Amino acid sequence: MFEKKMRLDALYLFYGKMLTDKQNEIMDLFCNLDYSLGEISELNNISRQAVHDTIKRTEKVLENYENQLGLYERFSDKQKAFEKILQLIEEYETTHSESLILDVRKIIEKEIE
Amino acid sequence: MFEKKMRLDALYLFYGKMLTDKQNEIMDLFCNLDYSLGEISELNNISRQAVHDTIKRTEKVLENYENQLGLYERFSDKQKAFEKILQLIEEYETTHSESLILDVRKIIEKEIE
Repeated sequence: MFEKKMRLDALYLFYGKMLTDKQNEIMDLFCNLDYSLGEISELNNISRQAVHDTIKRTEKVLENYENQLGLYERFSDKQKAFEKILQLIEEYETTHSESLILDVRKIIEKEIE
Repeated sequence: MFEKKMRLDALYLFYGKMLTDKQNEIMDLFCNLDYSLGEISELNNISRQAVHDTIKRTEKVLENYENQLGLYERFSDKQKAFEKILQLIEEYETTHSESLILDVRKIIEKEIE
């Protein structure tokens, strides 16, 4: 559940600009400000079910953009590479093993090829 | 001119999936296969001017996606960070100056914050 919300937040950050104003209004409250369905329902004077349906529909729109473009996945892969490099650097700072620096180089060369 | 084509190639790679089949057909020849306008014109049995106009219109569509989403710019920034790290690693391999490893760490921490 938490991971699902994290993914929705990320997809909204990536593709939110492609949404309609109405979708954006609700998704901004839900994703960026972490409002509950009930709070969004009160604020917009619409039923909780309508909020739920809008979020579900918008999630499909965002997933569709990701299916088409796959840019969030590409971006996540880059982030993972940075995290791996950081881990190697931290290990190097403790052990001073030169082979770790070679491992860093290999990751980078793969990323920029 | 060369940089303009490089940018178009990159934007096509990023947002090409959002184009129509007809736009894709021409852009694939122009961007991925490096066909000239004349060659695309012959192959598709349309005028050189029509090919030119399609490419110009499609370029605007792609630039519009980039204006909205800015994902190519974000991606380029990541690539620049990888290139900078590689440069520091290469410098380290020559000088073995530990401060270069600290510089690598700073770049990564900025990227994954």
